Amino acid sequence: MRRMQNVGVIGLGLMGKPMASNLLKAGFKVTVFNRSRPAMDALAAEGATVAASPAEVGRASDVVITMVPDSPDVDAVLLGPDGVCSGARPGTLLIDMSTIAPAAARRIHDAVTAKGFRMLDAPVSGGDVGAKAGTLSIMAGGTSEDFERARPVFEAMGKTLTLCGPAGAGQLVKACNQIVGALVLNAVAEAIVFGRAAGVDPDIMIRVLQGGVAATRAMEVRGARMAKGDFAPGFKVAHHLKDLRIAMDEAKAHGLTLPSTSRVADMFAALVGEGNGTLDNSSMLTVIERMAGAAPAART
Amino acid sequence: MRRMQNVGVIGLGLMGKPMASNLLKAGFKVTVFNRSRPAMDALAAEGATVAASPAEVGRASDVVITMVPDSPDVDAVLLGPDGVCSGARPGTLLIDMSTIAPAAARRIHDAVTAKGFRMLDAPVSGGDVGAKAGTLSIMAGGTSEDFERARPVFEAMGKTLTLCGPAGAGQLVKACNQIVGALVLNAVAEAIVFGRAAGVDPDIMIRVLQGGVAATRAMEVRGARMAKGDFAPGFKVAHHLKDLRIAMDEAKAHGLTLPSTSRVADMFAALVGEGNGTLDNSSMLTVIERMAGAAPAART
Repeated sequence: MRRMQNVGVIGLGLMGKPMASNLLKAGFKVTVFNRSRPAMDALAAEGATVAASPAEVGRASDVVITMVPDSPDVDAVLLGPDGVCSGARPGTLLIDMSTIAPAAARRIHDAVTAKGFRMLDAPVSGGDVGAKAGTLSIMAGGTSEDFERARPVFEAMGKTLTLCGPAGAGQLVKACNQIVGALVLNAVAEAIVFGRAAGVDPDIMIRVLQGGVAATRAMEVRGARMAKGDFAPGFKVAHHLKDLRIAMDEAKAHGLTLPSTSRVADMFAALVGEGNGTLDNSSMLTVIERMAGAAPAART
Repeated sequence: MRRMQNVGVIGLGLMGKPMASNLLKAGFKVTVFNRSRPAMDALAAEGATVAASPAEVGRASDVVITMVPDSPDVDAVLLGPDGVCSGARPGTLLIDMSTIAPAAARRIHDAVTAKGFRMLDAPVSGGDVGAKAGTLSIMAGGTSEDFERARPVFEAMGKTLTLCGPAGAGQLVKACNQIVGALVLNAVAEAIVFGRAAGVDPDIMIRVLQGGVAATRAMEVRGARMAKGDFAPGFKVAHHLKDLRIAMDEAKAHGLTLPSTSRVADMFAALVGEGNGTLDNSSMLTVIERMAGAAPAART
């Protein structure tokens, strides 16, 4: 292994772009590709090399990171015509940091390793704030050898790096994270709706609850804004819905339903249906207000 | 106000007994009453005076704390025959630290203040562990004058003392706390059920989630035991069900239903119905397993 690997980054959205910036700041030689031009130009100005295709990223890189919306995008970018695998050398480490279905992650892992590549699934949590700050939590699935090879790359982007198990395990832990994240927001939202109707001062409620066993990071970071009806994203409803559907599909593959996750997914789907899919996921509070029969609070 | 007030404690159960002990340790002269004898004898051995009735506690005390199961008990002990109010001097401060309905707290407050007494509702969180350690979170409703008068007494029993608003406000914030507590456990439990079926290592899941925005105190203190199927209480299902019913009744008085709280209350009711009301509230995981169609895990 060379001291400093050449890293490719494909997918320069809200997450991928700051992640690529942090790789450049850490001294990596970075080659980027994105469907649209402006993000590539911005990174070129920071020192990145712009590639004409995923295949060209593959040719230029020892490690290729993909950060794209969903599994069909990962498929296309890695295995499609002009995809990474058509350009990369055998042994290249592919790291998919998108949040996709664990089953798709395992399938893609098997397809690319059959071609002689190495692969980790490595979804993240921490949002665009964590991506910018380089403090993402990175949950990986794959071999410990590949994880150690990826470690310097991960360290440029994240703070907490965890090998969760074999291929797909990163996506499984991410699914657990998204289940808990959604249901904890549900808890905070229902308490705020109740408290408002009953005349509780939301700031006092938050202060008291955060001092005890009911404390949650979600209430700490979102509670005050939720109580004010400020639902600027943040993490968008439509994205969280996608992630819950991944969890429900994986559960189904094991013969399970997820009773509370399904209900919160329905709340998110209602928001998407009414054109509010781009609000923060904490806007499920407005659905709970309607289900509860509560008067909607003033929105900021 | 005297430098050191005489404090009465009525109700020496899992919570009241260690709270009275901590008052003795802090140097208060403490008079106790309990329906059954052994707890009174134990506190007498620590220096408490044993009273023959709540009225006698009232006669001996400047401040009387009640810590009893539910509002009929508070009614009986304060306002019933031989109750505190039949013995206490006007101006005596009555502090009900039981968890009861906010409406009942307001009604009892109005009844005793009409007789010339002062009153705070001051339910707690932190459980028997917090009661023993003197680290309870105390959430009070009443006037700031009465709250300040109670402060030295509260400081002997708790760590976080919050005046939440007027009479009943302590119970309202406690209700918020119990809603969030129940729904956060639901979140943790559903993720554990999902994770187990999907083959996630629960210790890794907990470690990763606790590092991010999905972090909850409940997963921190209970997650590992829940994953092992260890449901020794802790906070019992039957007690949490009582508290959720208080929240749902208060919501109803404001024309609201609480969609997710109702569902978790149903889970607790199912556990009580099958004779498992004395398990820890985290045993709702077993109900989720059944709803999800998951194989039950081994229990410890």
